Amino acid sequence: MSEKRQLRLGAFLMTPGHHVAAWRYPDTEASQVLSFSFYKKLAQTAERGKFDMLFLADGYAVSEKFPEAISQTVTVRPEPITLLSALSAVTEHVGLAATVSTTYNEPFHVARKFASLDHLSGGRAAWNVVTSANPAEALNFNKDNHLLHSLRYERAEEFLNVVTGLWDSWEDDAFQYDKENAVFADRSKLHTLNHKGEWFTVRGPLNVARPVQGHPVVIQAGSSEPGKELAARTAEIIFTAWQTLEEAQYFYRDVKGRLAKYGRSHDDLKIMPGVFPIIGRTEEEAREKKAKLEELIPQEAGISLLSSLISFDLSPYPVDGPLPDLPELEQVNGGKSRFTLLKDLAEREGLTIRKLYQRIAGARGHREIVGTPLQIADQLEEWFVNGAADGFNIMPPYLPGGLEDFVDHVVPELQRRGLFRTEYSGTTLRDNLGLKRPAHSATSTVSALSQASV
Amino acid sequence: MSEKRQLRLGAFLMTPGHHVAAWRYPDTEASQVLSFSFYKKLAQTAERGKFDMLFLADGYAVSEKFPEAISQTVTVRPEPITLLSALSAVTEHVGLAATVSTTYNEPFHVARKFASLDHLSGGRAAWNVVTSANPAEALNFNKDNHLLHSLRYERAEEFLNVVTGLWDSWEDDAFQYDKENAVFADRSKLHTLNHKGEWFTVRGPLNVARPVQGHPVVIQAGSSEPGKELAARTAEIIFTAWQTLEEAQYFYRDVKGRLAKYGRSHDDLKIMPGVFPIIGRTEEEAREKKAKLEELIPQEAGISLLSSLISFDLSPYPVDGPLPDLPELEQVNGGKSRFTLLKDLAEREGLTIRKLYQRIAGARGHREIVGTPLQIADQLEEWFVNGAADGFNIMPPYLPGGLEDFVDHVVPELQRRGLFRTEYSGTTLRDNLGLKRPAHSATSTVSALSQASV
Repeated sequence: MSEKRQLRLGAFLMTPGHHVAAWRYPDTEASQVLSFSFYKKLAQTAERGKFDMLFLADGYAVSEKFPEAISQTVTVRPEPITLLSALSAVTEHVGLAATVSTTYNEPFHVARKFASLDHLSGGRAAWNVVTSANPAEALNFNKDNHLLHSLRYERAEEFLNVVTGLWDSWEDDAFQYDKENAVFADRSKLHTLNHKGEWFTVRGPLNVARPVQGHPVVIQAGSSEPGKELAARTAEIIFTAWQTLEEAQYFYRDVKGRLAKYGRSHDDLKIMPGVFPIIGRTEEEAREKKAKLEELIPQEAGISLLSSLISFDLSPYPVDGPLPDLPELEQVNGGKSRFTLLKDLAEREGLTIRKLYQRIAGARGHREIVGTPLQIADQLEEWFVNGAADGFNIMPPYLPGGLEDFVDHVVPELQRRGLFRTEYSGTTLRDNLGLKRPAHSATSTVSALSQASV
Repeated sequence: MSEKRQLRLGAFLMTPGHHVAAWRYPDTEASQVLSFSFYKKLAQTAERGKFDMLFLADGYAVSEKFPEAISQTVTVRPEPITLLSALSAVTEHVGLAATVSTTYNEPFHVARKFASLDHLSGGRAAWNVVTSANPAEALNFNKDNHLLHSLRYERAEEFLNVVTGLWDSWEDDAFQYDKENAVFADRSKLHTLNHKGEWFTVRGPLNVARPVQGHPVVIQAGSSEPGKELAARTAEIIFTAWQTLEEAQYFYRDVKGRLAKYGRSHDDLKIMPGVFPIIGRTEEEAREKKAKLEELIPQEAGISLLSSLISFDLSPYPVDGPLPDLPELEQVNGGKSRFTLLKDLAEREGLTIRKLYQRIAGARGHREIVGTPLQIADQLEEWFVNGAADGFNIMPPYLPGGLEDFVDHVVPELQRRGLFRTEYSGTTLRDNLGLKRPAHSATSTVSALSQASV
């Protein structure tokens, strides 16, 4: 008898909350966005709720396109690997997922940092691979222009190959620690990558042992065509944004259907849409919270957020008018799937710029669920049992309250229904997610030939 | 009445010990080099000993020039910022100094990581700025050749300017958290760097608030001519290697003498030579420990270490013969000052290759002190009171034992003599070191003109 299929939960900690007005919300600890004690409390709350992982987004620029928005929004947060490393010391079970861009980093450093975090945390590291959607980032890295979308994905694919290759520099049992015979490492188990590609030349080997999990868990968020293909080949979790059950089901079938051609099975990739829950003791209380948050959105901050999500500057247009004519998808060099989603939403519902930014100022294109803990559990269950999701990345509107409410009221309901764990079953993130530990490339027949050994 | 001048102590944690044979030494926890619990114990021991800071070296390659040495030496360790972030969560006072190279990194990332660590640790971060001396690192970063020594220093200087500029992106009081009036940040206190230089084009601003310490403490280790000049202009600690009191005094006077032309005072820069202490209850026991360590050095590992320290391959030469003719200093593209130091040492004492590697296999060119806790305290005091050092970076031969002995036996002796603190006096690393907190560039008259404000 197999156990009932379990859903997976991520705690997406955008501080001090996902809603663009979160920092103005009563009780939100807005001044604590750089304080370790704040994050420690959040991490321990998520672990109390048996979440699979903490999830941190990242970006490499303060956008100055909308000067007023700078004063009205939270532009400063800790770098995710630094923060998650600190949190690894005060948690025991919860996974630690950091966003790191392949567009503005070097694979050697990225491989090394995640390998280090995986060792120090006892096998809890995950890498959310992004290609960066904000053109302002280029200007902080000696570049005049943001790399084109298609080139970013080419680079990302090669980047990932180099990183996983470097993680396999040493076989799992390479280290002997044999004091008597002076053998610290068995060098026949050291593999030098010697990668020479289009984007990178990286000799290796890595100066960190193979990670506890073999490879830290690989997460991707892109839902564009190249994003889906890269995910089907390499990702173990997809974090994605869908508004309706039908869209989510379509995406789920589409991506899962691409796995077989890469020799992967249905369970090797978990699809976890984002969910932005506004929780009330009654549905009315939840709706009041939502209205309160919308009321607190500073206008420039709303326009700025919407403009960045659709990669198009809306500031010249009347805020109570419709969206202007937007460029064709081919011209968009930001997040392509988010562009389409928001454009379709505005058209479908005939939203003005203001109505649209109010609509997305919390969930940012992800699914918003407003209601009681029971209603929220119902909606999560609906997607989970109907082939739309393997789990969810939970995006609390404000912190710490929004996470605490989820842990104290929604999680117990999911547990009652037998949909979610009551205790952590494994020791690594991979164990808890039900993902296989990858065999070392030199010991698996598939890719042994591509490895040059010393 | 001013307090007696206090010496500063760093705990240089090269795991599982500085001696190249440390991992073979009895009781050394060689298998723990990637375990958090091991580092936690070391960090808490250093904090119990009131050390100013933990200090971690770093490198970006496994050298494969000496194949046997790979199996005989410790080639894998955690990345320092990842590790120190984790340690920040289990310590309260001790500073956290990470080595990061300016040759293979981007200033935006480096500024951000140290700013993050400084916030998360409550003002305990320090950056040991190095330019990398190992040519093998280039091959892991898309380069065929290591950058020339002089160019590395040019790049380092500009890199440091960019990083300190980014740390000043926000004034100290830029963040208001004013929920009522929707002012998270006062944008008149945001400064965009707009750096365009020879090596870097970085717009800024940084997406982290100004660090708790203003700027994390800047450490340098270079003792070459360009190294000294860069340090005199920008460093707050110099970590340096000298064998004799006279050399150390000369260096101390030389560097301190260069401060005035940069508008800096004598106390703005602390000079901390490395010290490798082998501690015994008797002098005889200490000498036996040293002999035991020398006996445990695998020959290839010894030759490999020496070759890398002098940037010259000694493997073709008879190990019991003299050093071969070495290149002129101008041709050396590794660590120039270390090259000179070792060459002079071999000549002065007529050492064979084997004798020289035995001699440096622990201290690696730093000062070795073998004796009782009293003898070690005497020798530290001698340099400290005679204008050769403001403190010391302590390099335990093996871990955890070598650090525990220092904390339990040498520190109390230094405290008895009134040379070292019995309690931490400040809350930040800067406070404890007696270093001024740098004023923001926009509020100090000196450099306000070089800042473009938004």
